[in-house]
Amino acid sequence: MRVGVAGLGTVGTGVLDVLNREQDILNARAGQGLVVAAVSARDKNRRRGVSLDGIDWCDDAVELVRDDIDVVVELIGGEDGAALALAEAALKAGKPVVTANKALIAHHGSRLAALAQDNGTTILFEAAVAGGIPIIKSLREGLAANRLERVYGILNGTCNYILTTMRETGAGFGEVLKEAQDLGYAEADPAFDIDGVDTAHKLAILSSLAFGCEINFDDVHIEGIRHISPLDIAFAEELGFRIKLLGIAEHMENALAQRVHPAMVPIDSPLAHVEGVYNAVVADGNHVGTTVYQGRGAGAGPTASAVVADLVDLARGQSMPALAIPTDRLVQHQIRPIADRSGPYYVRLMVVDKPGVIADVTARLRDHEVSLEAMLQRARKPDEAVPVVLTTHDVREASMAAALGEIGSMDTVLEAPRMVRIETL
Amino acid sequence: MRVGVAGLGTVGTGVLDVLNREQDILNARAGQGLVVAAVSARDKNRRRGVSLDGIDWCDDAVELVRDDIDVVVELIGGEDGAALALAEAALKAGKPVVTANKALIAHHGSRLAALAQDNGTTILFEAAVAGGIPIIKSLREGLAANRLERVYGILNGTCNYILTTMRETGAGFGEVLKEAQDLGYAEADPAFDIDGVDTAHKLAILSSLAFGCEINFDDVHIEGIRHISPLDIAFAEELGFRIKLLGIAEHMENALAQRVHPAMVPIDSPLAHVEGVYNAVVADGNHVGTTVYQGRGAGAGPTASAVVADLVDLARGQSMPALAIPTDRLVQHQIRPIADRSGPYYVRLMVVDKPGVIADVTARLRDHEVSLEAMLQRARKPDEAVPVVLTTHDVREASMAAALGEIGSMDTVLEAPRMVRIETL
Repeated sequence: MRVGVAGLGTVGTGVLDVLNREQDILNARAGQGLVVAAVSARDKNRRRGVSLDGIDWCDDAVELVRDDIDVVVELIGGEDGAALALAEAALKAGKPVVTANKALIAHHGSRLAALAQDNGTTILFEAAVAGGIPIIKSLREGLAANRLERVYGILNGTCNYILTTMRETGAGFGEVLKEAQDLGYAEADPAFDIDGVDTAHKLAILSSLAFGCEINFDDVHIEGIRHISPLDIAFAEELGFRIKLLGIAEHMENALAQRVHPAMVPIDSPLAHVEGVYNAVVADGNHVGTTVYQGRGAGAGPTASAVVADLVDLARGQSMPALAIPTDRLVQHQIRPIADRSGPYYVRLMVVDKPGVIADVTARLRDHEVSLEAMLQRARKPDEAVPVVLTTHDVREASMAAALGEIGSMDTVLEAPRMVRIETL
Repeated sequence: MRVGVAGLGTVGTGVLDVLNREQDILNARAGQGLVVAAVSARDKNRRRGVSLDGIDWCDDAVELVRDDIDVVVELIGGEDGAALALAEAALKAGKPVVTANKALIAHHGSRLAALAQDNGTTILFEAAVAGGIPIIKSLREGLAANRLERVYGILNGTCNYILTTMRETGAGFGEVLKEAQDLGYAEADPAFDIDGVDTAHKLAILSSLAFGCEINFDDVHIEGIRHISPLDIAFAEELGFRIKLLGIAEHMENALAQRVHPAMVPIDSPLAHVEGVYNAVVADGNHVGTTVYQGRGAGAGPTASAVVADLVDLARGQSMPALAIPTDRLVQHQIRPIADRSGPYYVRLMVVDKPGVIADVTARLRDHEVSLEAMLQRARKPDEAVPVVLTTHDVREASMAAALGEIGSMDTVLEAPRMVRIETL
């Protein structure tokens, strides 16, 4: 099988390296040799630590769509531009595409799947979600007998590394982010990761496979981790929780809820122990029950592992539709907005430490039928700012938001209230 | 696709139920209808809570191998007899087989895979290991780009339930076993489960897929959990461990080690938190790193989920070899015996509480170059039996066994020493 690879960054060179080093086992598993016949990247002369001898060079990625190339691997990145142009050109030519590009699939996946189907081919994207963990294959094939009720998890290694390090060291968000950038765990422009967009891309993809719907990135509710403070992490610990950035998709009563936000998970839940750059996905099926998948969510090795697994599938004649079912059977579920979320909440207020403040706060909560589960007030400093922490019983998000709006405007409440959803899942 | 199902116990009726209830999604995912056309079981008249209307009945399972049946599902159980006869007959007729039978695959898998290959068909067995967790698919396809170095895990829900309950309640093995039997978590004859044979079956299967070798059940070192006492569980907790029955397969320096035994795993390792009837498998690949898969290891729903996923694969034209690579490429690795295991050990001795005993014990350890990491002696009862607990640094099993042989024969050591391997993996 002759492969054309577009994009020779960390992942692209990783793919070439794996294809080269593991020829023997890949040949046995794929039933034929996997040969990189042509590549394309921005700079032909950059040193990459991998030999390009005997491999054709294309200045323009779409040139890879040619008669002697059987499969196109898209590792350019970006939701539009060259990546999209290449994927479309390859699929139109009836050539399968393998990609690690979550932005591309999140934004154009349904359309690309239809394009593939119309041209008798497919587009595979195991590497787009959770690195080397075979979660796409597990949802698309392994759990094929199930109606899924929920899929959720820790989908961004950068955020998980930052939150883990903040907890372990007590350092603030900015400091740990900078350290993560120095170590190569965070991008120079970290917004996509830390603001939750990357997690939302992945969640929208998982959601489609899990619930048989078109990929709907636009309706994902997204919050990132910039506002998480060491104080909240410490209170979480005290209350028996850890803070994780979760992507959560649920299909209930024919409506789809998709949300990305920091959440407190109980210390004894499987996700609490997924630390550092590790990712984990939980899938709840009606027959199989709860299944959990963990591994490294990024990096050259894990991502190349996923890309090459897709290539082996293609070499073996794998013929599943890209989104598990024919694209004309994908539905568009009604959207359940975040205001309809129901569950417990953690709230931290910075209040003036004087009599009556707590009574005012709890009156506002009562007015919106928010029922308290616990309240913590640690340091006492009369007439100064002190943190007050509340946890609630199950309450609708809309009520919680209304109560917090009023509480935030009180004179005795000195900062915007910090709210973190508690997910017992 | 017309399916013949042999065996209508819990799993068989579960499969019929899933195929019936999920027709709609299965049709979309399989690209065709999955129809149970014929069944076979011992007692035609038993009430099963599932309709057999319109389904042919065969008194003899091998009658399912007939022209109008496309796939045979073997759920009879047992390593030989009717299950083996049916699998052989179907494969010889060029019909794919789906089975949940780990004993069959552990004992005859390599031969059945070759028979399938010779007849242009395959045998799938996702349900044979770890229930509904798609671990066979993950090893065979999802991690296809990797050389695996190690695969291990908690593979028997009965044992994990017993060990979890013993820890939570402090009750003894016999009492918890009886309770597990009453709850249906353990068989009336529990030997296969609690003596580690079931785990060994599953380990031998995983091992073959992971390391590209013939299935070698006979060389699995097997120990069960009958000798685990509440005292050892309590000491494990105190030392920061939990006791789990593990199956561990490693491929190092061209030799294969396969062993099943109770092990102490650190409380912060992923396996420590896999409790009750849950299973978990860890697979370490050279590119992907460590991946972990968790879920329910048994029961009608999870097992049927796996059987039906295999049927969907077949309906989609899945064509991977049963053991991931052509059978003529399967190797026979040299075996690394348990005596060559190297790692830390936990040892509990019941000794007479009098001066000099510890000195005698530690002298024996020193003679065999066993280096102590810690020693605990709790209750002091002069001249009575008291437990002494030791943990060691890394030591070869052969040395440990020799030292324990000598220590066990000391007059002041009142019971056979209890040894549990510590696995930091």
